[in-house]
Amino acid sequence: MINFQTSPDQYKHWKLNVTGPVATLTMDVQEDVTLAEGYKLKLNSYDLGVDIELADAVQRLRFEHPQVKAVVITSLKPRIFCAGANIYMLGTSSHTFKVNFCKFTNETRCAIEDDSHHSGRRYIAALNGTASGGGYELAIACDEIYLVDDGNSAISLPEVPLLGVLPGTGGLTRLVDKRKVRRDRADVFSTLAEGLKGKRAKEWGLIDDYFPTSKFQESIDARVRELANSNGDKESVGGIKLHPLQKELKPSGVEYRYLSLVLMCEHRLEVLTVLGSEAGLPTAPAEIQQLGDSYWPLQAFRELDDALLHLRVNEPEIGLVCVRTWGNGDDVLTVDKTLAANKEHWLVREILLHMARVLRRLDLTAKSFFAIIEPGSCFAGNLLELLLASDRSYMLNDTQAAPASVSVSTLNAGSLPMSNGLTRLQSRFLADPEKVERVLAHDGAFDAEEADEAGLITFVPDELDWEDEIRVAIEERTSLSPDALTGMEASLRFAGPETLDTKIYGRLTAWQNWIFQRPNAVGPEGALTNYGKPTQAHFDFKRT
Amino acid sequence: MINFQTSPDQYKHWKLNVTGPVATLTMDVQEDVTLAEGYKLKLNSYDLGVDIELADAVQRLRFEHPQVKAVVITSLKPRIFCAGANIYMLGTSSHTFKVNFCKFTNETRCAIEDDSHHSGRRYIAALNGTASGGGYELAIACDEIYLVDDGNSAISLPEVPLLGVLPGTGGLTRLVDKRKVRRDRADVFSTLAEGLKGKRAKEWGLIDDYFPTSKFQESIDARVRELANSNGDKESVGGIKLHPLQKELKPSGVEYRYLSLVLMCEHRLEVLTVLGSEAGLPTAPAEIQQLGDSYWPLQAFRELDDALLHLRVNEPEIGLVCVRTWGNGDDVLTVDKTLAANKEHWLVREILLHMARVLRRLDLTAKSFFAIIEPGSCFAGNLLELLLASDRSYMLNDTQAAPASVSVSTLNAGSLPMSNGLTRLQSRFLADPEKVERVLAHDGAFDAEEADEAGLITFVPDELDWEDEIRVAIEERTSLSPDALTGMEASLRFAGPETLDTKIYGRLTAWQNWIFQRPNAVGPEGALTNYGKPTQAHFDFKRT
Repeated sequence: MINFQTSPDQYKHWKLNVTGPVATLTMDVQEDVTLAEGYKLKLNSYDLGVDIELADAVQRLRFEHPQVKAVVITSLKPRIFCAGANIYMLGTSSHTFKVNFCKFTNETRCAIEDDSHHSGRRYIAALNGTASGGGYELAIACDEIYLVDDGNSAISLPEVPLLGVLPGTGGLTRLVDKRKVRRDRADVFSTLAEGLKGKRAKEWGLIDDYFPTSKFQESIDARVRELANSNGDKESVGGIKLHPLQKELKPSGVEYRYLSLVLMCEHRLEVLTVLGSEAGLPTAPAEIQQLGDSYWPLQAFRELDDALLHLRVNEPEIGLVCVRTWGNGDDVLTVDKTLAANKEHWLVREILLHMARVLRRLDLTAKSFFAIIEPGSCFAGNLLELLLASDRSYMLNDTQAAPASVSVSTLNAGSLPMSNGLTRLQSRFLADPEKVERVLAHDGAFDAEEADEAGLITFVPDELDWEDEIRVAIEERTSLSPDALTGMEASLRFAGPETLDTKIYGRLTAWQNWIFQRPNAVGPEGALTNYGKPTQAHFDFKRT
Repeated sequence: MINFQTSPDQYKHWKLNVTGPVATLTMDVQEDVTLAEGYKLKLNSYDLGVDIELADAVQRLRFEHPQVKAVVITSLKPRIFCAGANIYMLGTSSHTFKVNFCKFTNETRCAIEDDSHHSGRRYIAALNGTASGGGYELAIACDEIYLVDDGNSAISLPEVPLLGVLPGTGGLTRLVDKRKVRRDRADVFSTLAEGLKGKRAKEWGLIDDYFPTSKFQESIDARVRELANSNGDKESVGGIKLHPLQKELKPSGVEYRYLSLVLMCEHRLEVLTVLGSEAGLPTAPAEIQQLGDSYWPLQAFRELDDALLHLRVNEPEIGLVCVRTWGNGDDVLTVDKTLAANKEHWLVREILLHMARVLRRLDLTAKSFFAIIEPGSCFAGNLLELLLASDRSYMLNDTQAAPASVSVSTLNAGSLPMSNGLTRLQSRFLADPEKVERVLAHDGAFDAEEADEAGLITFVPDELDWEDEIRVAIEERTSLSPDALTGMEASLRFAGPETLDTKIYGRLTAWQNWIFQRPNAVGPEGALTNYGKPTQAHFDFKRT
């Protein structure tokens, strides 16, 4: 079982050093500390374990070190920055694992950009040696890239020429869409195994500058000082500590404090239940900061994040997740009110940005999600996003004294955007944008019929039909081809505009997944299979 | 060898009837007239041969029947409109063929929408029976969809539940992006093998209306009359005739009047040479109309279209196309001047829109394109787009009396857009939009150094290096994995915004191609393989 939780004192491959407004993240991969057997992580190449630490470090910078203005990413190894994802790890991994590995590393790089964009921390890739493949892709996720000019160090994306696959961590998209490299130059660069060195790399816009070895460190330091001095005001207060999540693994699933996963193996179904907020949580930022990572919206969404990663990687056979909530919707709405009122406070901002990232992780999870709304549910405000992110929803249309209800908060109006830049309400009502306004202006909770009328719910069976209808829906869903569902969901969830992020997960990733199955890459004579062996790749040259 | 040329008198599966401002395209597929062996085209299901006729009919409507304002697409078969792409054809086709088949059918549907959008013809899908899979996808490419309410006829996308693949002809994207169907309803519809009938289909926005059998024909007729009377002014003049292209198939390639393809098999290379316009072509629309389909920009681009389709389907082993032009750039610019000055004239408008579609076909062709610019080349104006559409360009930096040159015309400023809505110059200079203006304002032709300086050319070797540099580039390119190149080119060619069209070719198609290789679809136990057999599909339920 792969564990996504870690902390700096447990890091094997990275060192996180924070001095005032500057953090340095140094890569020093231990080649024998791997997540699986059969490969060594030479030359700062990485596997999922290395990237879990990087993701953790970026997360901690935001919560634990809010005063940091500049983050330098560099390497402790001589002459090599990072050689990218480990080829032998890829060569020996299952297709499913490869795809999930790339998805996670993509999310980590998007999280770096999210931090830069929304929290104003500048990321500097200080390439003190060669950055190839995923190494350059890590650099291109940073704001600025500086390369040492030692006559040898280069940047490269050698996946196409050497391995017959794509740079799978956003590289091609960021080349032309983020750095806006001219497409013919991007074509040359992406087919050049040896890559480019300082002068031409700068000329083509692939790096920001290059410095001779003797001046490299001082040039980076100077740039970092500049950023530390000029890059706006940051809180001088300390951050909050992110403690390990307490979770209990049971044969039937996983239990967290605010979340449980109940596995129903024979149905390839998992029931995910989120407990709503308690009443009486603090409303002032200082008190929230004192509460720290046990504050409900932070802890519940950290648990949700961990649960989603667990589902993806450790429960591949699970095809359907039924999403339930349990608690008092009004208490959830009170939390949203506090968050909305204090969204300029650094910690509240970080909590909201974190919730948004976790919800985007859900949008990008290759499982079907059905939201189940019953009496006692609390799909309100931020938790309503779980319903809106689901592929379908079923709401019991009952006549009890306390019927099921759902409700909106101002957070549904823009604080928790999808990767395509729209809110989930906007995505839902593309045909009729006025419905978004009507739903947001609705007074109080929606009962089943109101929610149906407003377009929030897929089906509202009554008590007589409820159990049968859900049972049949689950049986039908879990009988379908998991691959067809993945492709279908990736198409239907992302109506409307596309962004750099969605292009990475849509266009680029889908092509990469295709290539990751092609005999020319992974067959016995494929380039990935034969990399580093005395045998040579042989291609079927038919163009598809 | 598959031939993409046809004409109404040769149609086997469609009838094209034109009466004044109304055209009717009636589908009546002959089940035994197939492009390959091993399947029958029952229930108006289609193979590539059927779609070649549809594409031809849409093209002819634009050039031969400019007065048509409304096009009704319907079926001659009782109770069935169209059952979509033939499953047995798909099941017995190679992966490469399946992908190319879907690309062509997608282009045909986009051509329908291009006609509707730019030339104002309204397309009515008159579903006089069930439309399933590609049948509904054809309907959803039309402007309006009407379904007969006979208690039986339905619309459906049964690919996911029955075949374990996606609706591959834009269906999912058009559901949520064109008709803007709510994503949860799109999810339900796309997993419901039996589909939906009139009432709910209309409620969910999947069709525009439904009529009982007894009123169906008159309701369609009434709507068509309305369109014929109200839909703006159309030329009352007759169109021009599209004659069959004269081409000669030789062992070494194909020769057209203005274009030749020379096959260099041992290098998996094809050299495509386009001859520029003659001098002295007419400049007045009436004379152009009289010249008809032999007018250079129409004939040369029809030939290019045919050559691209030939390359895709009949020459799968060819991975690289070297693009050359030959002629007088000034004569090409004169043609562009005529086209730009008369772009409001129906025929000139159609010629320009056709050129734009052919260039988009090139953008979407899974081959590498290198433009080769030598003395005698005429990469000017509309032919400069061939250079800009290429993955790279090589221009001889010579010192002769008549050196190689390239030049721009106003057509490069917007008349020939890519699928993403940008011009190729805009796509090229995303990092520096001012360069677009500077290039367009340039006085006269660019020699190699000027073109290099302006950012138009990838490499400008001198005479000493020219042959070696091109030879090495060709050898390198053709040694790479064809799959990795396809994915790389699909990523680098489409920087910037995405549109409905690019989402279909990017996100949806890439996922479909992935699924088209998955054992769950095409393995011995896959759903596509086992469709219609007594055996049943068995899935590996791991979610990827």
